[in-house]
Amino acid sequence: MGVAVKDAAQEQVKPGAKHLGKQTLVFTTRPGVAATGAIAGPMEGKGPLGSLYDEVTADTILGQKTWEQAEVKMLEKAVSLAVQKAGFQPGEIDFVVCGDLLNQLGASSFAARTLDRPHLGIYGACSCWTEAMIVGSVMVDGGYATRVAIGASSHHDTAERQFRYPTEFGGQRPPTATWTTTGAGGACIVDQSDPGIAGYPRITHGTVGRVVDIGVKDPYDMGSAMAPAAADTIVTHLRDTGRLPTDYDLIITGDLGRVGKALTMDLAAESGFNLEPVLDDCGLHIYYDHQDVHCGASGCASSALVYSSNLHRKLISGEIRRLLLVATGALFSPTSYQQGESIPGIAYAVAIERAEQPQKGASANA
Amino acid sequence: MGVAVKDAAQEQVKPGAKHLGKQTLVFTTRPGVAATGAIAGPMEGKGPLGSLYDEVTADTILGQKTWEQAEVKMLEKAVSLAVQKAGFQPGEIDFVVCGDLLNQLGASSFAARTLDRPHLGIYGACSCWTEAMIVGSVMVDGGYATRVAIGASSHHDTAERQFRYPTEFGGQRPPTATWTTTGAGGACIVDQSDPGIAGYPRITHGTVGRVVDIGVKDPYDMGSAMAPAAADTIVTHLRDTGRLPTDYDLIITGDLGRVGKALTMDLAAESGFNLEPVLDDCGLHIYYDHQDVHCGASGCASSALVYSSNLHRKLISGEIRRLLLVATGALFSPTSYQQGESIPGIAYAVAIERAEQPQKGASANA
Repeated sequence: MGVAVKDAAQEQVKPGAKHLGKQTLVFTTRPGVAATGAIAGPMEGKGPLGSLYDEVTADTILGQKTWEQAEVKMLEKAVSLAVQKAGFQPGEIDFVVCGDLLNQLGASSFAARTLDRPHLGIYGACSCWTEAMIVGSVMVDGGYATRVAIGASSHHDTAERQFRYPTEFGGQRPPTATWTTTGAGGACIVDQSDPGIAGYPRITHGTVGRVVDIGVKDPYDMGSAMAPAAADTIVTHLRDTGRLPTDYDLIITGDLGRVGKALTMDLAAESGFNLEPVLDDCGLHIYYDHQDVHCGASGCASSALVYSSNLHRKLISGEIRRLLLVATGALFSPTSYQQGESIPGIAYAVAIERAEQPQKGASANA
Repeated sequence: MGVAVKDAAQEQVKPGAKHLGKQTLVFTTRPGVAATGAIAGPMEGKGPLGSLYDEVTADTILGQKTWEQAEVKMLEKAVSLAVQKAGFQPGEIDFVVCGDLLNQLGASSFAARTLDRPHLGIYGACSCWTEAMIVGSVMVDGGYATRVAIGASSHHDTAERQFRYPTEFGGQRPPTATWTTTGAGGACIVDQSDPGIAGYPRITHGTVGRVVDIGVKDPYDMGSAMAPAAADTIVTHLRDTGRLPTDYDLIITGDLGRVGKALTMDLAAESGFNLEPVLDDCGLHIYYDHQDVHCGASGCASSALVYSSNLHRKLISGEIRRLLLVATGALFSPTSYQQGESIPGIAYAVAIERAEQPQKGASANA
């Protein structure tokens, strides 16, 4: 079990050492998250975070001809809004990094066409949000970019018909099922030269996940399929950094739901880490219980929306001092499922620290 | 039009400047490509590069139950072989970066499960090979990794039934159609500390593409759909670096085919760059004319195989001194096509220089 260290990014790392332990990147310049954009569907708007989203759409089609085109619009809006709220023109963004669940990264590719900036498409299923954060932070921290916009989206209706049954079919959903979140999150990651940097939450580490597979084959129990990857990435992150779970105010996974969260806690305990005091799951914050989504929310938009709406502002206010955001992905396709393959998982973790609180005269790393 | 500069990576860039012009990354430490792996299908094995592949498979199924699983095996083999030929154990690789065409990145995700290293999934359609090279080079040049393995794959039979018609249908193919390459390429990218670095081709620049769309809607004419993106990335690269086309011995696109290559040349000429003396396309090197593939080869494996088998060894021998490899992707899905969307393209360019030739006492940048 690791030894608690107050700030591994600054104290434990030799200057220039940007790779810690097995899988963790150290962002020594601490890129800032200048702003976020959160666009949510109507059902998400009726959930606990409804008042915190930048926009709740009136319906799930947004005046488009198809749900897929509506998802593209949501992603465009979320990324554009993050850039705008950060005070930049679209042309001032060096790179865009996006991911989504549609075949051939359909939402990201078409959103990137409109955004018209150099684009890196990434795919980690529902872990796209933190995979994009890691790639974006590498570009900024490595000195390759001054500003990177990231984004991730999902849409209940596009996902349901792509991954499970035609939406008209109305198949019964078992209690382990989650509900794919309709929405998109965007964020603008900036380097040290940004005049507002002191007021922004800072990304200090990224832990790149391995693909972990314990043989779950049920696409209606993705929480169990992804939990081993979530536990693996969290435990690896803690060992790599020498941190304890309680060095974080909150360790929050992407879309494990109730079943997956409990399993992650058990698996981490087997490795000697008690996550109980700090573990939560974004999928449990999108909908109220009475919204009848069974095990919680899933989809790229689960972690993207919870970060963009609520966690980001808590990191600015200081309500959260240090966050480990661990978006989780189930790496299956309908084809692999129909061919009898199991559902492997992956998880990417990003450590984010609160903005400096100059009014109190305190250090950002206190 | 740009001014010719002998070596922009070393002469034109201020120390620490890693972003040049609009879209180009400068890898000042010049990561080395330590080794490649090239696994080709039987039809590709009968093509002009047949004797240069590391392995030509006896059939397209490789003892698996499905073509998709066969593609996974090909990708695993190509990446593993690159790592092995570079003299490393799998556990010595810091990160794997892979992409492919299957829904939900099916080949990469399942190959990464076997490779069991931290994985960054990327997607740029058939441009995955150079997108992975750029992300891998950023990780190494930025100091986040010592060794990164990259890979990209495609498979005629998995692509045909996913993107066009059931393979049993045997639909007639128009003359603008290309043939999806069956195969996979892998490469091992290493940093300065590698003992063999002097003998390896060196990656000096990466130009990240924009999504470009001129409204082509015919999935049997992807060369025309991707050509504007190819021309855009090549012209931007030349302007960003201040280089002329003839500063490269070869500028080679990924899978434009005959029609797309001609269009790229025309579009670059409109921007003042004459590519005629140096432009070629990997898609024209996979099959002989008598193999009846119409416009040439396509798929992620087109650029991956041509680089891994032939271009890499020419960069080592010095037959090519400076290469611009520009893999090209058509960012459509069957869903977007059926919904009436046009087919946008993207292209990622990587500049690679020959290995040093110490026996001649000459500089690598002569």
